[in-house]
Amino acid sequence: MRCAPHCVLASGNIEKNRASEMPLDDITTPTLLLDEAVCRRNIARMQQKAARHAVLFRPHFKTHQSRRVATWFRDAGVTAITVSSVGMARYFADDGWHDITIAFPVNPREAEQIDDLARRMSLGVLIESPDVVGQLDRRLGAAVDAWLKIDTGYGRTGIRDENHALLRETAQAVAASTHLRLRGLLTHGGNTYSAANNAEANARFDTSRRRMLAVADLLRADHTGLRVSVGDTPGCTAAEDFTGIDEIRPGNFVFFDVMQSRRGSCLADDIAIALACPVVALHPERQEVVVHGGAVHLSCERIATPGADSIFGLVAMPRADGWTAPIPGAAVVRLSQEHGIVHLPASRLADLRVGDLLAILPVHSCLTAECARGYRCLDGTTADHFAGRPHHTWRASSQR
Amino acid sequence: MRCAPHCVLASGNIEKNRASEMPLDDITTPTLLLDEAVCRRNIARMQQKAARHAVLFRPHFKTHQSRRVATWFRDAGVTAITVSSVGMARYFADDGWHDITIAFPVNPREAEQIDDLARRMSLGVLIESPDVVGQLDRRLGAAVDAWLKIDTGYGRTGIRDENHALLRETAQAVAASTHLRLRGLLTHGGNTYSAANNAEANARFDTSRRRMLAVADLLRADHTGLRVSVGDTPGCTAAEDFTGIDEIRPGNFVFFDVMQSRRGSCLADDIAIALACPVVALHPERQEVVVHGGAVHLSCERIATPGADSIFGLVAMPRADGWTAPIPGAAVVRLSQEHGIVHLPASRLADLRVGDLLAILPVHSCLTAECARGYRCLDGTTADHFAGRPHHTWRASSQR
Repeated sequence: MRCAPHCVLASGNIEKNRASEMPLDDITTPTLLLDEAVCRRNIARMQQKAARHAVLFRPHFKTHQSRRVATWFRDAGVTAITVSSVGMARYFADDGWHDITIAFPVNPREAEQIDDLARRMSLGVLIESPDVVGQLDRRLGAAVDAWLKIDTGYGRTGIRDENHALLRETAQAVAASTHLRLRGLLTHGGNTYSAANNAEANARFDTSRRRMLAVADLLRADHTGLRVSVGDTPGCTAAEDFTGIDEIRPGNFVFFDVMQSRRGSCLADDIAIALACPVVALHPERQEVVVHGGAVHLSCERIATPGADSIFGLVAMPRADGWTAPIPGAAVVRLSQEHGIVHLPASRLADLRVGDLLAILPVHSCLTAECARGYRCLDGTTADHFAGRPHHTWRASSQR
Repeated sequence: MRCAPHCVLASGNIEKNRASEMPLDDITTPTLLLDEAVCRRNIARMQQKAARHAVLFRPHFKTHQSRRVATWFRDAGVTAITVSSVGMARYFADDGWHDITIAFPVNPREAEQIDDLARRMSLGVLIESPDVVGQLDRRLGAAVDAWLKIDTGYGRTGIRDENHALLRETAQAVAASTHLRLRGLLTHGGNTYSAANNAEANARFDTSRRRMLAVADLLRADHTGLRVSVGDTPGCTAAEDFTGIDEIRPGNFVFFDVMQSRRGSCLADDIAIALACPVVALHPERQEVVVHGGAVHLSCERIATPGADSIFGLVAMPRADGWTAPIPGAAVVRLSQEHGIVHLPASRLADLRVGDLLAILPVHSCLTAECARGYRCLDGTTADHFAGRPHHTWRASSQR
């Protein structure tokens, strides 16, 4: 998909661009480029892996949050999805997705919106306490699927897998409720994100899997039909043993990012998005250029770099058909609200003028996509993002 | 404005809330609260300081980005403003602000939009190279005010103050251009943000000021009427010597935040915004609760804490008239995309239920406001944010 960075030095200042009829000429401000071919390839690989292991592929849509990208999943045969908020569930439900799990601890303040959605589709929510079962059950009218959220060691949310008393009590509360249906057990083994490599990610994923099966064994004594749902991109990418698992919910793999390529979940050319940023200042005396593209565009997510300060993105050159491989030795080294400060090798600095574009590969694609609130595909068409809808007031916000 | 945290334990779970008729009952998702009285007090203090030192107050609107908050500045007599992007300039120009400096290195790709704006108002842009003067001048039709961007030691953008040759050359290029008018010298002494206290911020501000005056002396030999513009919240808050300065451009002071209170620019009760977040999970076994309010709501800006890990916000209790003082020993200690993990003293944990609200004071208010894209004032009315406009496509994005 990509060629080496020396192939074509795309862009050039605006006058050169105009002469060369580059399709990026009309970009004036930070613009998130989306490579559909790379994205579809990422989807196909994960879908094939799920099929090979006979698990349901219920991808998490929080990374792309796009109805257009969602169609690429539909093309791959996906019908069940995961989202991270009630608003996002409604966004996709309104677009014809009717089997959605909201993989976030259920918030009783949103009971009314949950009830509305559950009346027209198969909606799943996460439960981790009998108190919430009670609060929710009193306010629901429709049937809602409930998944017990299990903490298999990540330590964010969920009932610890060894807390048998609370597991039994909460399962019983769901089973006894009027509107909740106990569907299964769900975990997010997010500790795979800090695994140094795929072997470690696989080991953590497998520990999590075995703990989930132990919980399932415990609860199946009293509850039938429990399904087991797991999911995280590093684990689902690295693992080959899905024994006992019914569905997987990875999300980030759709775009990948620098964080995932650093830890071996993908190659750099599997990264499907890059932020096109105009160069606005040259500082060869410190081997830096400044681009329009700051914390409000990339997010301020950083990644540690061995023997150096953290970085906020890798740097490539935009091309007519996407972008080059990352430039060795180049990185976004500091961010302000609108500024990105880019370190570049001296050899690259000589070619740049103010008005040129650089393509920044994000550290964390979920957050960069949320900042961009919309994509430009390589053919010049656009793709939507949930966060790009009108959002003028906190009331609109509360509709999310 | 605030009372001690033990005065009123606001909120309570949704049922308690309903019974108590708290005005925050209708909040279902993370909602950015804005205390107009605190905000107006912050504006008045800085305006009075500018008046006392006889400098023009040209506040930076990148922090609030709100036409409604802008009216509070107008009430305080402000007529000239600063913004950080061409889109933001248009947003405020369309609302009747007609003296705007875009305090970001000018991007020649936006020449057409700059030209449109300059035809109807007094518009200033930042210049730091003769090359950009040439690129811009060829594409402009209207007259545009040019400020030489000076780097007095922060090391982000601008011509270093000691680079006399480039200073003279760039000033000459502007003076010789057809459409640019050399208006003055501008710096952002952003190294005050890392000052440990006000004395250090004042010292850095003063170094910057003296370097600006030296540059002015240098260039006034060949150019008349040069104004000197400086601005950053820590410096403008700490300094009392503005000799030789014509205008100040602080921005963050309108809301302040945890970063500013930590370094002494403000007190905790000068912070004018807080993110109301529903509690979604209780984990007393690790002295934590989980709220809906993550990196997409707060931004992932963090601040180092002596002897502990970095934090992502302080924690208060919402009240009918705002929020309490920060709870001692409480902080947002980890963030995911939608999750905030809050450490709380054991005594506070006992009072909380899922469905309660916490008020999170942001580390960096500019970024949290950008994430929220709209405010809820304490009287239940709303305030807009530039980023809250419809934004479905990259073309809309490029309109920013």
